[in-house]
Amino acid sequence: MNQSKDSIPTFTQIRMAAKRIAPFAHRTPVMQSYWYNQITGAALFFKCENFQKVGAFKFRGACNAILSALPEQAERGIVTHSSGNHAQAVALASRMSGYKATIVMPRNAPKVKTDAVRGYGADIIFCEPTIEARQHAADEIIRKSGALFIHPYNDPAVIAGQGTAAMELLEEVPDLDLIVAPVGGGGLISGTLIAAKSMSPAIRVIGAEPELADDAYRSIHAGTIQPVLRTDTIADGLRTSLGELTFSVMQTYLDDLLTVSEEAIVNHMRTVWERMKIIIEPSCAVPVAAVAEKMGKIAGKKIGIIITGGNVDLDHLPWSK
Amino acid sequence: MNQSKDSIPTFTQIRMAAKRIAPFAHRTPVMQSYWYNQITGAALFFKCENFQKVGAFKFRGACNAILSALPEQAERGIVTHSSGNHAQAVALASRMSGYKATIVMPRNAPKVKTDAVRGYGADIIFCEPTIEARQHAADEIIRKSGALFIHPYNDPAVIAGQGTAAMELLEEVPDLDLIVAPVGGGGLISGTLIAAKSMSPAIRVIGAEPELADDAYRSIHAGTIQPVLRTDTIADGLRTSLGELTFSVMQTYLDDLLTVSEEAIVNHMRTVWERMKIIIEPSCAVPVAAVAEKMGKIAGKKIGIIITGGNVDLDHLPWSK
Repeated sequence: MNQSKDSIPTFTQIRMAAKRIAPFAHRTPVMQSYWYNQITGAALFFKCENFQKVGAFKFRGACNAILSALPEQAERGIVTHSSGNHAQAVALASRMSGYKATIVMPRNAPKVKTDAVRGYGADIIFCEPTIEARQHAADEIIRKSGALFIHPYNDPAVIAGQGTAAMELLEEVPDLDLIVAPVGGGGLISGTLIAAKSMSPAIRVIGAEPELADDAYRSIHAGTIQPVLRTDTIADGLRTSLGELTFSVMQTYLDDLLTVSEEAIVNHMRTVWERMKIIIEPSCAVPVAAVAEKMGKIAGKKIGIIITGGNVDLDHLPWSK
Repeated sequence: MNQSKDSIPTFTQIRMAAKRIAPFAHRTPVMQSYWYNQITGAALFFKCENFQKVGAFKFRGACNAILSALPEQAERGIVTHSSGNHAQAVALASRMSGYKATIVMPRNAPKVKTDAVRGYGADIIFCEPTIEARQHAADEIIRKSGALFIHPYNDPAVIAGQGTAAMELLEEVPDLDLIVAPVGGGGLISGTLIAAKSMSPAIRVIGAEPELADDAYRSIHAGTIQPVLRTDTIADGLRTSLGELTFSVMQTYLDDLLTVSEEAIVNHMRTVWERMKIIIEPSCAVPVAAVAEKMGKIAGKKIGIIITGGNVDLDHLPWSK
């Protein structure tokens, strides 16, 4: 079944995405933390997409988009732009499908991510770390080769793929009161909103983003998409502005949006490493910090948190000088 | 049922330990790694005791020993000496049982471990990092208070508790060809040997230790317990000599013992962090390095590895300057 490139995916499309990617993606574990339960008084359920293929939930969306593409177009090559995890996801999903991938990446992308993209056999074209520069470089490749562009978030097939994480989480813990997910371009939170509100109509879904990249917060309050003004938050996966599709989903369904400081992000990233013994990247610490520090009465609540990825440059940890 | 302090535990005692600790200890997950399977050609099954209470398998043994103790003695206090994880394990298991614990720790124990011991409400007495200094300090406390001493490894109840990890692993993956575990004082490998050889008579069990702390290798070849000559291996959990009980079990059942370099330990510790997204401490990387670099023909084999713990000082990682 084909799908318009500018329509919001339905829950049926998320269920189809889940079937499509099942042979390739991991069904990731849901973990709990005695320590976080103690300090919040709530019961937290961490959906661990750091254990996903390529170390991030992004594999779900990229895999679904490539598997749903028309082969005659995908054979001309796959192209995308990404600050990191979507790049790896497109690279691996392309290789698995036998297509050639070219990835446009910002010059300041972590080395661990550029190495991984090359490891999956994709070519990299570097550009300035702005959304305009990325899109321009991708457009050039498409113009020359006719390659298929997989947007990192503003694509219904990508959103549907990302929604499968929340779907699995709710299959495992059906009575969640709340799900919190980070907001970058909005692909994950959009898929999460569609899946969660379809499966559990009373559930609340809350987005979390860095104070330094609070474009979604400003966009929701302004009623129009506002750009990211700075690209220096440590949460390198959340340095992007919303797309029209993702903004539309958020306007319709999102219950709340919280912002957290850089200090809180680093603090909770380190705390998760120390207490839960799992490697999470800074972007994952954003919803954790929001739950631990920015929510009011959550004692007794069952709260799902999407842990988005674990790709960190171990030579440059945020707490080391 | 009481048990002599100088007899090797039986598999029945491991099964009883499993029942005894079940309400307190986690049944930890078994993880696989696509990357390690690729480079070895084998199927590796990692029993993740880094997700155990206190972040290490040591909780199993300490918990079993304290729960099997006579209350009238335990009420005089619990005392032990340990380079780290056993200390936390005794501290938490004591608090859970309502007993006061005093822990003798070497001055060079990682801060993350001393902080944790204090966090579990135990008192710490520091000593020089030698087995003699530790034992002397513990003896002083026992002489004054009549406290119950829980040896880190040379105790049948501790060995039986540690054996429950391999028991769970074999319940989950019954057809393992081989299990590899690190060797420090020998408590884990002894419990692993008794459980594995009872559950699966044809299985091979191999110990792994740092070249810089190859006392078990020398002991097995000499036929008598040889002391650790240096205490500077990065694998801080493996800086101890064998005990008489653990040496006896190893002499009877151990199939082989491999040693690995410091460089290989750091390399595989980092690789597990990067590829598997889990925090493991250096001691865990010892069996991983042994499997990846020191074994001959393992293609097609199913190999269990006990991942012993995840307590690492994040301010002092071995690959950072």
